[in-house]
Order: sequence, then structure tokens, then C-alpha cells
Amino acid sequence: MARLKGFQKLTRVDETLETWLRALQLDVRTVSVPLHEGLNRVLAEDATAQMDLPKFDRSAVDGYALKSEDTTGATQFKPVTLTTTDSAEVGAKQARQVWTGNPIPQGADAVVMIENTRKRGDAQLEVSVPLAPGANMSRKGEDIQKGEVAAKAGTRLNPYHLGLLTALGNTSVKVAEKPRIAIIATGNELAEAGTTPAANQIFESNRIMLLAMCRELGAEPVDLGLAKDDLEEIAEIIKKGLRECDAVLTTGGTSVGGLDLVPDAVNATGKPGVIVHGIAMRPAMPTALAAIDGKPVMILSGNPVAAVFGFEAFARPLICRMLGMPREEPRPTVKAAMTRQVATALGRRTFVRVLVTQKNSGFMAEPVSTRGSGAISTMTRSNGYVVVPENREGVAEGELVEVRMFGPVEVVNADV
Amino acid sequence: MARLKGFQKLTRVDETLETWLRALQLDVRTVSVPLHEGLNRVLAEDATAQMDLPKFDRSAVDGYALKSEDTTGATQFKPVTLTTTDSAEVGAKQARQVWTGNPIPQGADAVVMIENTRKRGDAQLEVSVPLAPGANMSRKGEDIQKGEVAAKAGTRLNPYHLGLLTALGNTSVKVAEKPRIAIIATGNELAEAGTTPAANQIFESNRIMLLAMCRELGAEPVDLGLAKDDLEEIAEIIKKGLRECDAVLTTGGTSVGGLDLVPDAVNATGKPGVIVHGIAMRPAMPTALAAIDGKPVMILSGNPVAAVFGFEAFARPLICRMLGMPREEPRPTVKAAMTRQVATALGRRTFVRVLVTQKNSGFMAEPVSTRGSGAISTMTRSNGYVVVPENREGVAEGELVEVRMFGPVEVVNADV
Repeated sequence: MARLKGFQKLTRVDETLETWLRALQLDVRTVSVPLHEGLNRVLAEDATAQMDLPKFDRSAVDGYALKSEDTTGATQFKPVTLTTTDSAEVGAKQARQVWTGNPIPQGADAVVMIENTRKRGDAQLEVSVPLAPGANMSRKGEDIQKGEVAAKAGTRLNPYHLGLLTALGNTSVKVAEKPRIAIIATGNELAEAGTTPAANQIFESNRIMLLAMCRELGAEPVDLGLAKDDLEEIAEIIKKGLRECDAVLTTGGTSVGGLDLVPDAVNATGKPGVIVHGIAMRPAMPTALAAIDGKPVMILSGNPVAAVFGFEAFARPLICRMLGMPREEPRPTVKAAMTRQVATALGRRTFVRVLVTQKNSGFMAEPVSTRGSGAISTMTRSNGYVVVPENREGVAEGELVEVRMFGPVEVVNADV
Repeated sequence: MARLKGFQKLTRVDETLETWLRALQLDVRTVSVPLHEGLNRVLAEDATAQMDLPKFDRSAVDGYALKSEDTTGATQFKPVTLTTTDSAEVGAKQARQVWTGNPIPQGADAVVMIENTRKRGDAQLEVSVPLAPGANMSRKGEDIQKGEVAAKAGTRLNPYHLGLLTALGNTSVKVAEKPRIAIIATGNELAEAGTTPAANQIFESNRIMLLAMCRELGAEPVDLGLAKDDLEEIAEIIKKGLRECDAVLTTGGTSVGGLDLVPDAVNATGKPGVIVHGIAMRPAMPTALAAIDGKPVMILSGNPVAAVFGFEAFARPLICRMLGMPREEPRPTVKAAMTRQVATALGRRTFVRVLVTQKNSGFMAEPVSTRGSGAISTMTRSNGYVVVPENREGVAEGELVEVRMFGPVEVVNADV
């Protein structure tokens, strides 16, 4: 059997996450923000309705408010005739015009739709249907009642939550503070974008990706730059990250020239240090997870695809916790048929990049070149990934798989 | 038959969109932004690779670079022995240590994995497998070749696009300028959030929702505030929107006290004015679409749910066009079984809000109270919607429907 590149033992993803999270001290800090800045923020506490919505009985249609008892027996052929009024209160045999959304005047208990009426002269109205009490009205509190929970703690606010909370009279909302995540890249082989690289250097491109992934989840990434393969330099910058941020995320240097440079640097900064190194997953096997005085440190591979899936497996659930979500926020999923077989290693959780296309109502998942697994273009050529569990040796051609999507399904023009 | 509230004729959604778009003059303006601000922006032109990636042949593993011909016939029991070297060029019967990502030294054409070697003394290396030329190497241009399209015009940039473009040496990217959308609410019955409303007033809450929906799509909404039900006031504010923005979106006043206040105000500002008013859809039937000198004006209902679906049906495809996308960006979808029957009107495209839950691998779509259809809480209680086409009279209980999702699927704890 092949040597596991220095790892005596690989730890399973679930076990890693559990062990690591137990070593962390995460507290969700809350902050009040104006509602118009609340989009995609995560509610820090249940938002309770402080009033009824609607706050009064109101008409759900354009028509006439009246007493329902006055319409008993009305038909198209034998309408009842009422007197129209403009007064604040609707009396017996009276009707008052209302438009959608208008408060129901005192004395009325139903609304007849304008199309079921006919004006007779100036002040007479024929009603051609019988109405039950409450007909065509929105009752006070029908939308939401005072004291009801409008949105639960841990909810990510969408435009409709903002609308509802505003309708309830709120102008601000208590949300989780954005966790600050320090992002550090390491490697002598890396040159900063915008500089001229040496012949044996490539452009560093993992930070911009990890910064964006943090932002997408609602964290606040802090770019701490690019460090050389130097234990002390790396340790210093990690210390800075721990001082200024809520978590540290590194990429590169998990196994440089056979040395575990970043894990060693992390261990040099405090306790307990690295908790798990070497995960039973593909890609991202050399990922390490650490804690320093309860603060999370994620040590991702320098391979861009491994960095992505290390993030996906560990940073994503971590950030959801730091935002106070009850569980990891799921990606949208699609069920699709594999266009060809993919073999995976038993005992490893494997993340297979796929391009999902839709033709008519059929969804197909095409595996995107597993050759050149470090190629970042395999991420831009795919729109989702399939997680093959540890107890499987792959997925069969035609098998229906659940794809976690990070881009839109590609629609293939139907021939019909 | 019921009168159509003043609409002589309802126009179908598809026909409306086509007719309206034909009356518009949309041009996509482009702007160059730093890549680190490129997340979720839409590419204005094909991004072409200006170099090969990788830019040199490099090792895909930790191991030794060598000449593949030197390993012919090697086995575990009869390894070949090579001499290790540190020189820039690998000669016959030589091997040079390389780590993942390192350039392949001159003269070498393959890499043996470290686990298939054994060191003998200081300078001898036993290789126990035969290697084909190119083994364990990433070839120059394997990820992407110079001149290849890295991402197509109209692509919304995700973190991986930013990574790839950075790896290719870019520091900025040409994207569509954010279309500026003026948002206006109208209605005497409305009070601004944060003020004390009169007894018959409610808080205006559609603007914050529409602003957020624009932002989600990557447009730049401009809040032009709340206007009274006054033709001149509304016309003035619409003119201001047309001067300062690329499109105008109003909510409320499509049928106030039986008058078409906003459509009339739009018609007063220029030509051609309102193109379609009264759409064969539910909700959002009283929506109107207009154009003033080629600029789009969307006149949405004041009913919050109708405003949402008017936006969904018309503003969403418009904004995608203004961003230069080849087609409307699809929402993620899920196939789910309806938990109960929903009746819809033949001839109307109906948007049915549903809450999709997942139990084990089954997805269920529960219609969210169609009673109180104007209740914005029906949007916060649901996570998607089903579009029932015009030629259907509803969906049956148990029917498998495609749900367009705007929130995460709710996972119900399985009993197993």
C-alpha cells in the first residue's frame, strides 16, 4: 500500500469536525443594524411581532362594506337594495365604498366585491350575492399576531423578512456580528497578483477565492497577505490573525518539502495547537484543524481545489456556527443522473465536481475531469459537486445522485 | 362572469414581456473593477487566458523527477538504481527531488512518487515502478491554455472564477455596470417606517423589499421615497427617476379608488408610456409595464405579495438583460410532491407559494395559505414557489412539481 505521505492515520470528516468544534470556544456576538442593511444577515434572536398585522380589519377587495345580515337571500335575480353612505359608521341596510386595503368601517362585518353590485341612481346599491360575516376582509392579525415570532433566531434575512419586519414597525434588527476570518497564504513559489513572478513562481490565487467564499457566507474576511516558507514569519502572522480576528485560515504549507511548516507554526503559537492533521477525504487530505485558546485555526492545502473542499468541509460549518445558525446552511441541491461512472477510494469521503445540465426535464451530472485535480478550472467548469460517502467505492453511470450546487444549472436547448 | 376590475383584457405574461422588451432600448455599460471586488458581478466580455496554466510542466506529487526511459522494467523486487542530483538539469540515470507544484527540471519527463522509491546511502535512489513519459506531472497548459476562454461574457463571477482569473495574472475584470433602478412607493395610506402612522395608515414596507431584491440580482437600487396619491407629485418623482436611473420601479397606485394613478402619471411623463396593463397572472394581475423613450418603467401593485411576483415576472428578467446575461438567471429548483391540491384559474399564470421540506430523501411542497394572499408573512413562511401555467387549472395532491427556491429547504428530522 502507498504511504499516506507522512500521515500515520487519516481521520474521518465527521469525527474531525466534532473533535475540532469541541475544542473551540465560539460565542456569537450580536449587533443592531438598520433594517435596510439587514439583507443576508443572520437574526441573533427571535423577531417577535410587536403589533398585529394587519393592524385593523381591512378590505381584501374593491367593493362595499356592509352588514352581512342585510344580504341574506340575495341573488342575481333577486338582489337586495342598500343605501350608500360616506359616514364613519355603516348602519342597517347601508353600504360604504371601500378599496383594497381600506379599514373596514365601524358597523360593517363583510365586503361585497364591486362586480357583485350595481348602482341604482345616486344612493342606491343592489347587491346580488349573500355574504357570510368576514367575507372579503383581512382580519386584524390575520397576517401575523402581536407576540408571534415573525422570524426565528438563526434565520438568514431575505428581502421578504425585511418587508415583514418593516411592516411590523421595526427600523433595525439584531443580527450576529460578522465573524472576522484572517486569511493567510504561504509559499515561496507564490507571487502576488500584479507583480512580476520569477520563472519558477506562480500567482497566488487562493486568498481571493477564500475571501470571496467567506463573504458569501456573511463573514468578514481580513486579508493578511502572503508569507514566505519561514516558520517564524508564519507564526508571527498567525499570531496577528489570532489577535485581530475570530478565526484564522491559512492556505499552503501543509506539507512543504516534506515539512509541516504551517502546522508547526500554529503549534508554536499556543495550545492546544493542531488537533487533527490528515483527513480521510479527497481532495484536501492534508488539511489540518487547530485551536489556539479556543479560537479556530484552519490549515488548508495550497492546492486550490483542495483549499476549496477543505473550506467546504470545515470553514463553512464553522462560519454557520459563528453566525448562530442551528445547523450548517445547506447549498441548493439537484438530483441528477451521472453521465459516467466515477471510482472513489473506500474509506475516503470524496467530493466529485460535476457540471449539471438540464434538457427538457432531465438533469444530468457530468463529472469534470478528475485528472489534474488541482486545476482550478475544474471548479469554473463545474456548477456543483457530489459527496461520495466513505462506505462507497464510487458512483455508477446513470446513478441518481444529489448534487450540491454552487452555480446555476446549464440549460441545454431541447431538440423538440 | 366577474368583471376584471376595469381591465378589458388581460395579457399573458410571455406576451407582455416580449412586447415590453421590444419597446425598450437597453445597453449594457461596462466597467473595469479590481478582481477582489468582482464577486457576483457579471462578465461584460469573454475572459481569455493570457498565459498557459500551469505556466510550466510541474510535479503533481512529492517525489523525484527523472527520465522515464531509465525506469523501464523496474519492479518492487528488481528496482532500478539512480543517482540523486541537485543540478538544474537531470541527466541519464539521475533523479532530482521535487515537491508538489515544483517545475519539472530540464531533461526529466516523469516523476516517481516518493512512496515508490527508497534512498540508498547519500546519493542513490531505488525506483520500484516503471513510469510512462508524463507520469505524475501536470503539463503546461493542462488547466487552461493561452487564448482559451476562461469564463464567458454574461457569467456571474463566483469565488472560483476570481481564483482562476487571478492565477492567470489578472488584477481587474471588465463587468457590466450595475443598472440603477429607481424605487418609488405611492399611497396616502402609507407611513414611513420610524414615523408615527395615523390610525388608518400602515407602514410602507415594499420599498425595502424591492431594494433588496434589486441588490440580490446585482443592480443598484436608488430609493426615491414615498409619494402621496397625487398625479403631479408622482409624475415629478417618476421624471426624476428617469433622469437619474436606468429604470423606474413603482409600487402602489395601480388602482387607487378605481383610478389608475401611477399609470396615468407615467403616461404624463412621455412616450410611449404604458404598454401593457392587466396581466393574466395571479397574484400581480394589476401590474403595468411601460417605456419612456426606451427606458423601462415597471408599475407594481401595492399589495406586497403582488409586488414580489410582479418583480419576479418582469423586473428579474429585465435586470438580467441589463447585466448582459444571455437569458434570465434561473433560481435553484427542487422537485417536490404537493402535500395538497391547489386550484388555479385557467388562463392565468399562477405563482403558488410553498414551504419545501425534506424528510430522508423525500421533498414535500406544502402550499402556504392562499387565503390572505396579500399577507407578506406568506413569503416568509415559504421558501419557494410553483409556477402553474395558464393551461392548467391547478396542481393535484401528490403531484411532482418544480419549485423555484428563494430560501433553503427545511430539513425535518427523520424518525430513523
